Amino acid sequence: MLVTKSQVKYIQSLGHKKFRDAEAVFVAEGPKIVEELLHVSGIRCRQVYALKEWISEVELPAAVPVQAVSAAELERLSGLSTPNRVLALFEKPSFPPPDYNEGITIVLDGVQDPGNLGTIIRIADWFGISRVLCTGDSADAFNAKAIQSTMGSIGRVQVIYDDPAGIMQQYPDLPVYAAVLGGKELYGIHRTAKGWLVIGNESKGIRPGLMELATHRITIPGSGKAESLNAAVATGIILSHLASLP
Amino acid sequence: MLVTKSQVKYIQSLGHKKFRDAEAVFVAEGPKIVEELLHVSGIRCRQVYALKEWISEVELPAAVPVQAVSAAELERLSGLSTPNRVLALFEKPSFPPPDYNEGITIVLDGVQDPGNLGTIIRIADWFGISRVLCTGDSADAFNAKAIQSTMGSIGRVQVIYDDPAGIMQQYPDLPVYAAVLGGKELYGIHRTAKGWLVIGNESKGIRPGLMELATHRITIPGSGKAESLNAAVATGIILSHLASLP
Repeated sequence: MLVTKSQVKYIQSLGHKKFRDAEAVFVAEGPKIVEELLHVSGIRCRQVYALKEWISEVELPAAVPVQAVSAAELERLSGLSTPNRVLALFEKPSFPPPDYNEGITIVLDGVQDPGNLGTIIRIADWFGISRVLCTGDSADAFNAKAIQSTMGSIGRVQVIYDDPAGIMQQYPDLPVYAAVLGGKELYGIHRTAKGWLVIGNESKGIRPGLMELATHRITIPGSGKAESLNAAVATGIILSHLASLP
Repeated sequence: MLVTKSQVKYIQSLGHKKFRDAEAVFVAEGPKIVEELLHVSGIRCRQVYALKEWISEVELPAAVPVQAVSAAELERLSGLSTPNRVLALFEKPSFPPPDYNEGITIVLDGVQDPGNLGTIIRIADWFGISRVLCTGDSADAFNAKAIQSTMGSIGRVQVIYDDPAGIMQQYPDLPVYAAVLGGKELYGIHRTAKGWLVIGNESKGIRPGLMELATHRITIPGSGKAESLNAAVATGIILSHLASLP
């Protein structure tokens, strides 16, 4: 069966956030992430397009619709410069309404790099954090590059795009940890059962409207000369203290 | 002045590790990293190729040779799908022979992703660690994508490609920390002044020949469901305890 023009057009449209949002569907590419997502409960696969050799090598769950495609067809569907054997459409996971009084919420203030965003979702999943709340100008978690970095955690961590400052003001009792340069040393901070951890934009940091809500401004001490740490690395380090240190 | 065919050929050749090694030169692309590297002492800039508007906006250190190029010329030189205003050639930094008895050495065992490698170099620089020792099958630190992720730390952290197991055996008194799944909890580990931190390949982990040298097998505790953490994130978390926790 050949891939139709309308299939190509549909999949290409999902390269844009607007269409991903409207359809509640996203695209994953490459054997590693597709095989991972096929086994994440809560994410339904709508369609797999793959080379015959990949199909014959993989044990697919029953009920997954698979279409064999040629290398040339895969190239037409793919957003990658070198398509990697398989591309699949998944439905976005759905979650119950978030309860911000339960556990830690990671707040992303304009994090731009999809790889950073995806890595932060994977970190949240590692530390048992169930949600990430993003400003509208943050990268989209369902961007193919972000999905690649989540390694399947996208099915277990709820990602919400909304107005973090407005929401946080409704919970005046929760502590707000802000990752900053020149703040209080991380190692003076104790584990917390709930609250917000705010991570800023890669170059501009946290905007004033969010910064003024901070109850703890924390910094990762370093004795070297780097000016800053990568946003995902900083998130991991802070959570290893805030969410996990006994 | 026009960009010559031989200039194009030379710069394109530097996309390959073999030529970067032979010439001891590497390429950086885009305003952010080029501007950063121009101000890192110990890295000499051999040539900048840039659009006129970038040249007029930036204060370049004296003695930096700059050639204005058209957008079309930049496209011929660039390894990026969308070239970003400036491309520059830098000489690789040189360092004195490493003294492994001084400080912590990060050992990378086949880390494949250049972004991870670059981010790990930046993390080393943050924590004041002066060297990264890599197996020959690790990604190259002078790959353009790795350089991008180092954010200038490539001038301050020595990256060595050699036989880590052979070298480590010459220092039988130094502790060897290996990042593993299912090891001892990180939080039981104390700060160390020197030793080795071994980080394995993104999917295969640490090879047996290195693992058998480990004196401490450490794991980052997580209560969630992610199967692993990104290699750079794990490096950052472990170092925040090993290199820095009081």
